[in-house]
Amino acid sequence: MDMPELQGYSGIVRKLLEQENISIGDEIEIISDGRKYRGILMARYELADPNYITLKLSNGYNIGIRVAENTSISKISAGAKPMFMRPPKPQTLSGLPNVIIISTGGTIASRVEYRTGAVRPALNADDLLAIVPELAEIAKIDTEVLYSLFSENVQVQHWIGMAEAVDHFIHKGVDGVVLTHGTDTMGYTAAALSFALQKPPVPIVLVGAQRSSDRPSSDAATNLIAAVATAAKAPFGEVVVAMHKWHSDDIIALHRGTRVIKLHTSSRDAFRSVNSRPIAYYQHGELKVVANDLNPRGSNNYTYKPKFDERAFLVKFFPSMKPDILSILADSGIRGFIIEGTGLGHVSSDWVPIIRELTERGIFVGMTSQCKFGRVNMNVYDTGRDLLKAGVVPLDDMLSEVALVKLMWTLGNLGEGAGLEEIKKLMLMNIAGEIYSRSLPNTDSW
Amino acid sequence: MDMPELQGYSGIVRKLLEQENISIGDEIEIISDGRKYRGILMARYELADPNYITLKLSNGYNIGIRVAENTSISKISAGAKPMFMRPPKPQTLSGLPNVIIISTGGTIASRVEYRTGAVRPALNADDLLAIVPELAEIAKIDTEVLYSLFSENVQVQHWIGMAEAVDHFIHKGVDGVVLTHGTDTMGYTAAALSFALQKPPVPIVLVGAQRSSDRPSSDAATNLIAAVATAAKAPFGEVVVAMHKWHSDDIIALHRGTRVIKLHTSSRDAFRSVNSRPIAYYQHGELKVVANDLNPRGSNNYTYKPKFDERAFLVKFFPSMKPDILSILADSGIRGFIIEGTGLGHVSSDWVPIIRELTERGIFVGMTSQCKFGRVNMNVYDTGRDLLKAGVVPLDDMLSEVALVKLMWTLGNLGEGAGLEEIKKLMLMNIAGEIYSRSLPNTDSW
Repeated sequence: MDMPELQGYSGIVRKLLEQENISIGDEIEIISDGRKYRGILMARYELADPNYITLKLSNGYNIGIRVAENTSISKISAGAKPMFMRPPKPQTLSGLPNVIIISTGGTIASRVEYRTGAVRPALNADDLLAIVPELAEIAKIDTEVLYSLFSENVQVQHWIGMAEAVDHFIHKGVDGVVLTHGTDTMGYTAAALSFALQKPPVPIVLVGAQRSSDRPSSDAATNLIAAVATAAKAPFGEVVVAMHKWHSDDIIALHRGTRVIKLHTSSRDAFRSVNSRPIAYYQHGELKVVANDLNPRGSNNYTYKPKFDERAFLVKFFPSMKPDILSILADSGIRGFIIEGTGLGHVSSDWVPIIRELTERGIFVGMTSQCKFGRVNMNVYDTGRDLLKAGVVPLDDMLSEVALVKLMWTLGNLGEGAGLEEIKKLMLMNIAGEIYSRSLPNTDSW
Repeated sequence: MDMPELQGYSGIVRKLLEQENISIGDEIEIISDGRKYRGILMARYELADPNYITLKLSNGYNIGIRVAENTSISKISAGAKPMFMRPPKPQTLSGLPNVIIISTGGTIASRVEYRTGAVRPALNADDLLAIVPELAEIAKIDTEVLYSLFSENVQVQHWIGMAEAVDHFIHKGVDGVVLTHGTDTMGYTAAALSFALQKPPVPIVLVGAQRSSDRPSSDAATNLIAAVATAAKAPFGEVVVAMHKWHSDDIIALHRGTRVIKLHTSSRDAFRSVNSRPIAYYQHGELKVVANDLNPRGSNNYTYKPKFDERAFLVKFFPSMKPDILSILADSGIRGFIIEGTGLGHVSSDWVPIIRELTERGIFVGMTSQCKFGRVNMNVYDTGRDLLKAGVVPLDDMLSEVALVKLMWTLGNLGEGAGLEEIKKLMLMNIAGEIYSRSLPNTDSW
């Protein structure tokens, strides 16, 4: 992929840049509507609105500036061009860690169709590398396009496909794995990979973006840099999710794969660790590890268990909800339920007889809370104790979404003949940091 | 209800108190394990652990102190006994606002069975008044026991029963209504009452507690005081939920009834306003109103619409979930669905044909997000636009739980023959602050 001197610029804007003898990589100053911007001129996509200039600011963040009649542009200094070219071929870089970027789709690997305003998955991992050239300084990067999926379409078979791909590259000896993934179901996939790839010898980092990478406000570049740096250098072998900690660009949180959910539809800091803190932060080019219970990089404890059984179902309880739906689903072949109950893990009393029937048939019923934060405790109130007697398994502080993924994994690994006691034992065993029988101390953000 | 001088104290602790000539209401000092406590000696329940003393600290908060061998107790000053007696009969208090406390159950109206450790609903509104005597200084209180329910057992008919009771007392001319309610489903009930009792002439305040009122760490008293003060004095006629803002006792938040959920299983500050801020705070005896779009107290816009139809269903989407469940439920009579989709409002593409079938049959399908915070926007990605074409109605920034309650209310009010367009119009119309088509500006807590 060549990078001409003004790639992506056309029309009036291109003329203005040419007049000032500016090319991509130069440091420039733009004054527009009374505001002054200083930064490095970046390449753009051909399809983008021709009236915008993309600048990389000194904080590493890209912004888009609309060029109007009153806009003036001047060159401050010529850029070191190679920095904005396709990174040199791997053989010219020695000593850097090997990182594989596996692209599965999502906003981080998508671009806006300017005519329609819609976002489509389009960029492959090579493209990402071309627009975030800093990556070449962090690691020797290889790329693989595995899927091109909106993450709402990621299914259990894709979790298995991703696990297989990661396992393949682990055996090829990479120093770290990055998976680009849509944010919608990235938490579910992170949990699935945490169970399928236990105690891996290298970091496995899922990364997404809330704004597509050719939008000026995109978080794609900063998230991807943190993900690649973590994959390359982190001292742990864990499945993590790399996303903005705050609204601003300065800190990227590395969330444990079994503790993370998307808690905001659109904010850059949409991802949160629940009932746990992120295990590390990436800030100013440095990775700061804060958890002390991590599997060390290079450990020999790696276990690969990529089986899942889809016949598990997550039910969110609500007032006046009829329990018959559980029987109907069980009759259709569902082997286990996660009930997202209220408060400490409750459903209305009229659910008790049907739940007892299910567990007597060997169908697993686990309880989590729709409160998300905190833990279920079914010993406090009569309702909880009646549910326990009916065979419900309280899943401590596990997220509902993670509990569902773990149940699919448990059913897949134990196979058809598995008994309730076996399933319960595995569901309550901490496999990848997903369940703690005691809470962490209260923190400012719970 | 008599209050003997050392009610609830027995054994060694009672002897110690008698030796020092201490009775309930006295200010005392306790030194135990090197720590010093000063406060007013409170009455206790007979069944409580006899080795504890309950002190009311100067901040109004009750704590329990275990009496050990090295504990010393001394009297600082004799208390003004009447303060801890049953409040004087209403006729002796003139000029105070009239507040009705309607008890429906929950932890705030419960006590711990110390033998079993379980919590049972037991206290009625009179009991609450007896243990929180400060209430008598705020308002002339009447009490009514409507239900004694754990809130996971609250059903649609109870919402209707509560609406009827509140409407009855509004017509009797009370200055404010307080409903004690279990916390598990208090958010759902608050939404239901917000739709059933629109623009009421007086405040309607739901209040709960995360710890039962005879536990030393109970939040019952502080929440109840704030609730009664709000009912008595607030300048607005709105349905609100009064619960701790922080972990500490100093601020109680008044959440808008259509914007509040329980987001932690056990923390005192479990309740949060979502996509909105609390409309007021109660602190140091003062109510500070922060919202500026409130229905004023005494307004003539009151509308009473207590109809609900239970044939609505909330579905939480997850990866590999089969859409058949929607058809099964529709065949069983469900008139409308709220889908808690991913991210901006998505489900996997294989759901589109079944959803189209449902909407063609006149069944409502509304979309919210399992992210909770933020709003759905189905115009950004192909999946969203396909769902829109299939007839899905995006419900902006409405909480899933509130959308479900509103759908039940909409179906109940429009009746059997209602067409999809009518339902859609009402679902998207802002009735009680539940839906804003534009976001509030970003705040520190979203």
